[in-house]
Amino acid sequence: MQNEDTDKKPYISVIGGGSWATALVKILSETNDYVGWWMRDEESVVHVKRYHHNPKYLTSIELPTEKIDITTDLDHLVGESDYLIFAIPSAFLKPSLEHLSVPISDKVIFSAIKGIVPDENVIVGEFLNQNYNVPIENIGVIMGPCHAEEVALERLSYLTAASQTKEHAKFMAKSLACDFIKTSTSDDIYGTEYAAVLKNIYSLAAGICHGLGYGDNFQAVLVSNATREMKKFIKAVHPIKRDITGSAYLGDLLVTAYSQFSRNRLFGTMIGKGYTVRSAMLEMNMVAEGYYATKLIKSVKRDYEVKMPISNAVYKILYEGKNPRKVMAALAEKLS
Amino acid sequence: MQNEDTDKKPYISVIGGGSWATALVKILSETNDYVGWWMRDEESVVHVKRYHHNPKYLTSIELPTEKIDITTDLDHLVGESDYLIFAIPSAFLKPSLEHLSVPISDKVIFSAIKGIVPDENVIVGEFLNQNYNVPIENIGVIMGPCHAEEVALERLSYLTAASQTKEHAKFMAKSLACDFIKTSTSDDIYGTEYAAVLKNIYSLAAGICHGLGYGDNFQAVLVSNATREMKKFIKAVHPIKRDITGSAYLGDLLVTAYSQFSRNRLFGTMIGKGYTVRSAMLEMNMVAEGYYATKLIKSVKRDYEVKMPISNAVYKILYEGKNPRKVMAALAEKLS
Repeated sequence: MQNEDTDKKPYISVIGGGSWATALVKILSETNDYVGWWMRDEESVVHVKRYHHNPKYLTSIELPTEKIDITTDLDHLVGESDYLIFAIPSAFLKPSLEHLSVPISDKVIFSAIKGIVPDENVIVGEFLNQNYNVPIENIGVIMGPCHAEEVALERLSYLTAASQTKEHAKFMAKSLACDFIKTSTSDDIYGTEYAAVLKNIYSLAAGICHGLGYGDNFQAVLVSNATREMKKFIKAVHPIKRDITGSAYLGDLLVTAYSQFSRNRLFGTMIGKGYTVRSAMLEMNMVAEGYYATKLIKSVKRDYEVKMPISNAVYKILYEGKNPRKVMAALAEKLS
Repeated sequence: MQNEDTDKKPYISVIGGGSWATALVKILSETNDYVGWWMRDEESVVHVKRYHHNPKYLTSIELPTEKIDITTDLDHLVGESDYLIFAIPSAFLKPSLEHLSVPISDKVIFSAIKGIVPDENVIVGEFLNQNYNVPIENIGVIMGPCHAEEVALERLSYLTAASQTKEHAKFMAKSLACDFIKTSTSDDIYGTEYAAVLKNIYSLAAGICHGLGYGDNFQAVLVSNATREMKKFIKAVHPIKRDITGSAYLGDLLVTAYSQFSRNRLFGTMIGKGYTVRSAMLEMNMVAEGYYATKLIKSVKRDYEVKMPISNAVYKILYEGKNPRKVMAALAEKLS
């Protein structure tokens, strides 16, 4: 599917077949001549090629397949690409990379994963740097606030492209900008990625409290405290100057904690209403990233002396089987 | 209704008959032996005394009238009181004070008004200082995030009592604390009051955008930008060290911008859906504080060189009859 321009213009590929990957492919195909797309599942590839829709996620989106090089051959796609965007749940990053037998150390890699790599307890950029020799200056992050479902509806949304190399951030921001997506750049790859991880935990907390019957007044206090907890943690992990009220930090937290589309909030609400963790998972039939994030942040946090009462409360409920009502009542005493 | 303790324990009175005043009377009567309450309307006073409910606002709340000295005689109540809490719409502050013929300069006065005094373009504390000789050190502010409707339901909420005199702030915080209200203190009477004024404007903006069909992704960006606009403005007006992500600032903004109970958001939503300002007001049958705040902030802002694109956009829609769709599309270009 490549045309003669391939050599001239940097080639961007999206790795992943879920909703956020599908949304990114839609966005990129708005203003770019071609986009690469790797999906693990052969059936999905055939379906997209034939019907121009992802059979499983954001099924309403019509994809301009004449512009999209869809494949299950990761080596082939990586070979063609200059920029790779990883958009798979963090739990599937390592298994997906096992499909790879060519190096990726010369690629510019943006993470749209918003997660910590299980077992490794590092964010995606660090993992790729340590395990795949991708230089940190070639690592980037793509950050919301941006629910994929609203991209499907072409509702105006904002994305931030972060990289310590300004040109990479700029190129990605330009490539993602279209009628319904506005973009900006940042150099804070650690802060934005950790913010994206933490916000899922806080959204879970908001859901649990909602399920327990706490009201809007309390939610506002919870989210304010969460913003401060996020700020303190990120500052401890990577102390550079940043404004936590930026859209990539506070904005991303807000859309996750308050939106009807938030899976983490819904998962939390079920827990608050009395579902067990296992039954909430079965009922939802999909994984809420916040579930893993809660465990992983707990491990990462051990290296830093930061008080994180909200994350701790969620951990106690999800992993220690503690009573949500009691845990949240104790948390409420610590908020201000 | 006074008893012999009156001389021993400071006497707190609430001035105002609306929902927030009613909620404050309920809160204060939880842990205090007696509370003074001034309502302008004689019929309401009679009704509360007889039926233990406010006939017009938060009608579900049962008030322990044996603890409450309810009166239309403002002079009498002021004479009895050590602390006064003003909880009336900012537009009614001046007319209400005309009922007064005794001085209030020796009282400690807390504003729960969250508004700028019309014609004067100053916040309530400054107005009382300038026009009624109340020393600034005897001025205080009571701040949410706290919808009165949730107080009626006894849902856990947090209040901040601010005063430059630590003892006043502490006393008020202690007086307001009860089973369903947690309190903290602050010395930032200017910042908290301006935050409360601005949040109504931002909530109106959020409503307008919601009415126009903007989604959750956009709202998150709007509210993040609003937090930064608020921070910049308050810093310009009163440059002390403060954390804008505190509950009295960000929290208050969140509850107003995201809550189903927010009148300002509802008013904005109607404008966004095509109602004229006049018809939205008629339909709501009550005044959204943000309507006045928008005009007043515009005047106050003239003295400071702060860019306020969101407040300006709301002003253009409400006072210059500009097309909401066009104004918000232009605003969207300025957000990040």
